[in-house]
Amino acid sequence: MTRKIIIDTDPGIDDAMAIFFAFQAKELDVLGLTTTYGNVPVDIATKNALTLTEIAGVDVPVAGGVSVPSAIEPRPFPDFVHGADGFGNIDYPAPTKTALDQTAAEFIVEQVRKYPGEVTIVALAPLGNLAKALELDPEIANLVDEVVLMGGTAVEYGNVSPVAEANIINDPHAADKVFGAPWQVTMVGLDVTHQVLLDNTILERIKAQNPEQGNFLYDCAQFYIKFYSDRFGVEGCYFHDASTIAYLLDPSIFGIELGAIRVACEGIALGQTIFAPQGMEYPEPHWDGVPMTQVCMEVDGERMLKLFEDVMVAV
Amino acid sequence: MTRKIIIDTDPGIDDAMAIFFAFQAKELDVLGLTTTYGNVPVDIATKNALTLTEIAGVDVPVAGGVSVPSAIEPRPFPDFVHGADGFGNIDYPAPTKTALDQTAAEFIVEQVRKYPGEVTIVALAPLGNLAKALELDPEIANLVDEVVLMGGTAVEYGNVSPVAEANIINDPHAADKVFGAPWQVTMVGLDVTHQVLLDNTILERIKAQNPEQGNFLYDCAQFYIKFYSDRFGVEGCYFHDASTIAYLLDPSIFGIELGAIRVACEGIALGQTIFAPQGMEYPEPHWDGVPMTQVCMEVDGERMLKLFEDVMVAV
Repeated sequence: MTRKIIIDTDPGIDDAMAIFFAFQAKELDVLGLTTTYGNVPVDIATKNALTLTEIAGVDVPVAGGVSVPSAIEPRPFPDFVHGADGFGNIDYPAPTKTALDQTAAEFIVEQVRKYPGEVTIVALAPLGNLAKALELDPEIANLVDEVVLMGGTAVEYGNVSPVAEANIINDPHAADKVFGAPWQVTMVGLDVTHQVLLDNTILERIKAQNPEQGNFLYDCAQFYIKFYSDRFGVEGCYFHDASTIAYLLDPSIFGIELGAIRVACEGIALGQTIFAPQGMEYPEPHWDGVPMTQVCMEVDGERMLKLFEDVMVAV
Repeated sequence: MTRKIIIDTDPGIDDAMAIFFAFQAKELDVLGLTTTYGNVPVDIATKNALTLTEIAGVDVPVAGGVSVPSAIEPRPFPDFVHGADGFGNIDYPAPTKTALDQTAAEFIVEQVRKYPGEVTIVALAPLGNLAKALELDPEIANLVDEVVLMGGTAVEYGNVSPVAEANIINDPHAADKVFGAPWQVTMVGLDVTHQVLLDNTILERIKAQNPEQGNFLYDCAQFYIKFYSDRFGVEGCYFHDASTIAYLLDPSIFGIELGAIRVACEGIALGQTIFAPQGMEYPEPHWDGVPMTQVCMEVDGERMLKLFEDVMVAV
C-alpha cells in the first residue's frame, strides 16, 4: 500500500531534498507538486518543481499557485539562503516540461475529491494554497488524510523573529486557517528541524550511489551549507523540509505533543504559532475549540538522516 | 550597607510574603510601598499595603497609584486566586494608617531624585506606576539602581494565555515602556517562579517562630494554596512575588540569561514578553537597540525557600 501525497512547495534547496526523498520512497505515491512563493517567487518555484521532476525522471504534474500572502505585504525573498534561483545559484538549465493549466488549489481539491480519505498534503512553504483550497471547497478538510507541514515553532526560538518561522510569517492568516480547519495537522517545525544537521559526508555518499539526484543536491547544498556555517558556525545545513517526508515514512523517529495552535496575525508576534498544550486551560479564550495539532517536539536525528540516506541510495 | 528599595505592589497573598520578607531582611531598607490594581482594585491594594506595615510594625509610607491599564480595557480581578480582599478572604480589620498625598509615580520620582543611583524598584504588579514615573521624569531611568520585576515569561508557558503572564497582560503597553527604558531591568518571571512551591510545612515553622507575620501569612495562604492544589494538583503555592526579594538578597540562587524584551501589545499574543536572546539576530527589527534585560531562567528552589525561612524567623 502506498500513501498518496501532494507536495506544496517553494523549491528551495531543502524542498529539493524533500521532493527527491519522496520520489525515491516506495511507500509514497506523489500525485503532484503544487507551488507557491516563499524561498523564491512562484514562477521560479514552478520552474524549479518541473526541473526536479525532470532530474528524477518521474511523470508527476506540477500546478502553480498563489504568488503573494493573503493579507500582509510580501516579505523580501531570502536569496542569501537559497540563492536567487532557489538552487544555490548553480545556473541549472530551464526545464522543458510545463505546468498544468489548473491552479494549485484546484489541483488539491480535484485530487482530494478523487481519492477521498487517501490524500496527505505535505506543505513545505507558506500556506496560501492550502487556505485557497479550503476556501474553494471547505469539505476537503474532512476528506484529506493528513496535513503534514514544515513550519512554525512551539517552544524553540524562531528564525525570522524570536518567535516566528519563515513559512508561517510569510502568510500568517493562511496558516491560522490551516491550523483551525478540522483536518489532522502535523507540524514539523523548528522544535525538531533545528536539532538535525545534514552535512557533506552524507551528501557525498548519496552522490556516489545516486549521481543523478545526488550531484544536483550536492551542488545546490553548498550555497545553503555556507549560509548556515557563516551565520551559525555549524558544519552542515538544517534538514527542514525533508523532515516531513521522514515523518511520513517513520513517525516513530519523532516525539509528538498535542495542542491547539493559533497564529499571531499582527504586531511584533506576527507569524508566531502559539501552542496551547492539550489539557491546559487559560483565561484567554483564543485557543478554545481549536482542533488539536500534532506537534513534533523531539527527533532522533541519527535515525532520520540514516533513513534519508538509505532511501536516497536505493535503486 | 543596606540597599534602598521601593516595592510597587498589588497585595495580593504572594505580595504579602514578598513585603514581609523585605521588611525582615536586614540588608534591605524599604523606602516605601507604592500600590496599583492587579490582584485587587487599587483602593484595596493601598489598604492592604497599610495593613502589612501595621502588622510588621514598621514605619514605611504607602503611596497609591494607577487604577487602570494604560491603553487596554481592565481585565477582571482574580478573586479566585487571592480572594476578593486580596488576602484570601480572611476578613482582616481595616488599617488605621493612611496613604501619602503623593501618587505612586510622584513618590518614586522623589525618592530616586533624593538618592541618585541608590534606589532599586521591586515591581510585583502591572507596571503602570513605573511607566507613569518614567513619563513624569524620564531621567530617573539613569538614576535608578535596578528594576527587579516579577512578571512575564521567556520560555515557560504563560498563566493567562499560553504566552502571557498576569502582571504583564494587565498593562502590556506600560511593560513595553519599562523593558525599553535605559535602566537595568531584571525579570523574575514564570521561567523560575513555576519551579518553586512553598508549602504549609514552611509556613507553619515561620508561624511558630514569628507569630505576628507568620500567622497572617499562614491564614492568607490557605486560600491561595487551595487554588493551586485544585487547579494544578500541586501541594503548595507558587512563590511568585517573593522570588524578587530572594534575588536581591542572593542573586547566585538564579541562573540568568541576557536578552532584549519587547511586549506584544495586540492580538492573541497580548502581554507576551518576547525574548530575543543576546547575540541572536533576526530579520524582524523590533528587538534592535532594545536594552538587555537580565532574565532569570534557572533557580535553586531549595536555597530560595531556605533563605525565605531563615529571614522570616530571624528576630
